Amino acid sequence: MKLVRYQKGEESQYGVLLEDAIVPLPLLAKKLKTKIPESLDNFIASEANNLETAERILKLAERDTGNATCKLDEVRLLAPIVSPPKIICLGLNYRDHAAEQNAAIPDEPIIFFKPRTAIVGPHQNIVKPSFVERLDYEGELAIVIGKKAKNISVSKAESYIFGYTILNDVSARDIQFKDKQWTRGKSFDTFAPLGPCITTRNQLEETSDLTIRTWVNNELRQDSTTKNMVFNVYEIVHHLSRVMTLEPCDIIATGTPAGVGFALKPAPRFLKCGDIVKVEIEKIGILENRVVDTREVCERQ
Amino acid sequence: MKLVRYQKGEESQYGVLLEDAIVPLPLLAKKLKTKIPESLDNFIASEANNLETAERILKLAERDTGNATCKLDEVRLLAPIVSPPKIICLGLNYRDHAAEQNAAIPDEPIIFFKPRTAIVGPHQNIVKPSFVERLDYEGELAIVIGKKAKNISVSKAESYIFGYTILNDVSARDIQFKDKQWTRGKSFDTFAPLGPCITTRNQLEETSDLTIRTWVNNELRQDSTTKNMVFNVYEIVHHLSRVMTLEPCDIIATGTPAGVGFALKPAPRFLKCGDIVKVEIEKIGILENRVVDTREVCERQ
Repeated sequence: MKLVRYQKGEESQYGVLLEDAIVPLPLLAKKLKTKIPESLDNFIASEANNLETAERILKLAERDTGNATCKLDEVRLLAPIVSPPKIICLGLNYRDHAAEQNAAIPDEPIIFFKPRTAIVGPHQNIVKPSFVERLDYEGELAIVIGKKAKNISVSKAESYIFGYTILNDVSARDIQFKDKQWTRGKSFDTFAPLGPCITTRNQLEETSDLTIRTWVNNELRQDSTTKNMVFNVYEIVHHLSRVMTLEPCDIIATGTPAGVGFALKPAPRFLKCGDIVKVEIEKIGILENRVVDTREVCERQ
Repeated sequence: MKLVRYQKGEESQYGVLLEDAIVPLPLLAKKLKTKIPESLDNFIASEANNLETAERILKLAERDTGNATCKLDEVRLLAPIVSPPKIICLGLNYRDHAAEQNAAIPDEPIIFFKPRTAIVGPHQNIVKPSFVERLDYEGELAIVIGKKAKNISVSKAESYIFGYTILNDVSARDIQFKDKQWTRGKSFDTFAPLGPCITTRNQLEETSDLTIRTWVNNELRQDSTTKNMVFNVYEIVHHLSRVMTLEPCDIIATGTPAGVGFALKPAPRFLKCGDIVKVEIEKIGILENRVVDTREVCERQ
């Protein structure tokens, strides 16, 4: 099941993404006199078997949609989660990305956090501050945590994962490399595009060889597979849960493959205003965002 | 005004800390038929003039306390904030601390985040994981943000600050120095003791020369003043607000002075189980926590 948050008119809702339509869950639940949480955050976090309820709603909706189902082109997709307790990001977690910058492969995950204020949804703008000169993309598979997790073994990690989405770890390389600590250059508002949907774990049981690609203005820049990950998703949950308690709706960005702008040969190429960045991950979808400068009025979230 | 969260019996409440008593705010507000937010988070975040209301409640309470006021030794103090949107920490922000490790003084704040899951309150345990060998303290003045802030000038920064508290930036030096990125070694559960109170800005208008001291088992280790800060609290708010939107209840730990364990001469000294760490900052108070190992049962928050 692919879950999305979206805006229709003034209201934001959540539902199930079909080919080119969305089945609104709380709305249909009410109509069908079934209970389901009012927000996607609570759908993820609550102990109830919401996926099963959602499946039932979907089946009923096939027979009895009325006008509840809406067309994808009538709505604006939103970031699936806007207030995660944490956004944990891994560095150097793809062998091809470590190789392109002659960096050693880590023997334990190296991490940093992004703040929730960096999140924007699909088709929202990435705002390049005027004093940032070397703006770069990093397409990444992101884990969405479903249950509180502490000291979880690799073999048990799967059941703590709710699903997967895409995060673009937008980075100001000038600041990142000046500071040496990566955090500041990756923490600007709009530097964490997220979406377009969360593919639930039961639809994505095999994450060991997913195609991951990033385009800038239709030019393919990153073209890899999760096969190149140093730590796979279960190993990541295990390692991180030994450090900190993972919480429902935590997002874990699992690192980026080769092909980032600063490592391109023969010369680095950075993002400019007007550029369109697209990240595609198999079985999830495409996350697309445009780069604008601070003078342009940003769309409101 | 010094604001505290505390537990009395099963309930957690908040109120004003006096010499050796606490005036419970929502409880007295009800008694006096005045309105005040139900939680300290909302007290900080809401637009209403809650400080003025609290002052009025305090005055009324002097005449009409009944048995509402409770003695400090009858309650357990809690961390004043447990779900901040962000905990932003500065590195190398004291000239004496930069000097003790021969590090250059940064020309812009260098930052990292700690996760909210690291927070513990006064007198709660710092849990040393079995695989961490070089555990260290860092006493720090922490800013509590009161209003949403983006691109704020130094001269306007003060009005975005709600108050100040103490944060101990507990650090696993082995992991911090191995990763080079500081985040993981500083993100373990219990590695962010916070408290004991929030001193509101109107009680702490001058933060440029506050004494800051850290003891380990009554041995003085850090003994400095905020005079040694590279960026003062207003400059910090200015710089960070150029990067990210600051939100009510965000915590900004402003860096630690000289005297951390890893830099001690003639040899580093790290924290052991049973050690008591005390951080004292003038006009705020003392934050005290004990180090235990994972075998000891931790107190529940």
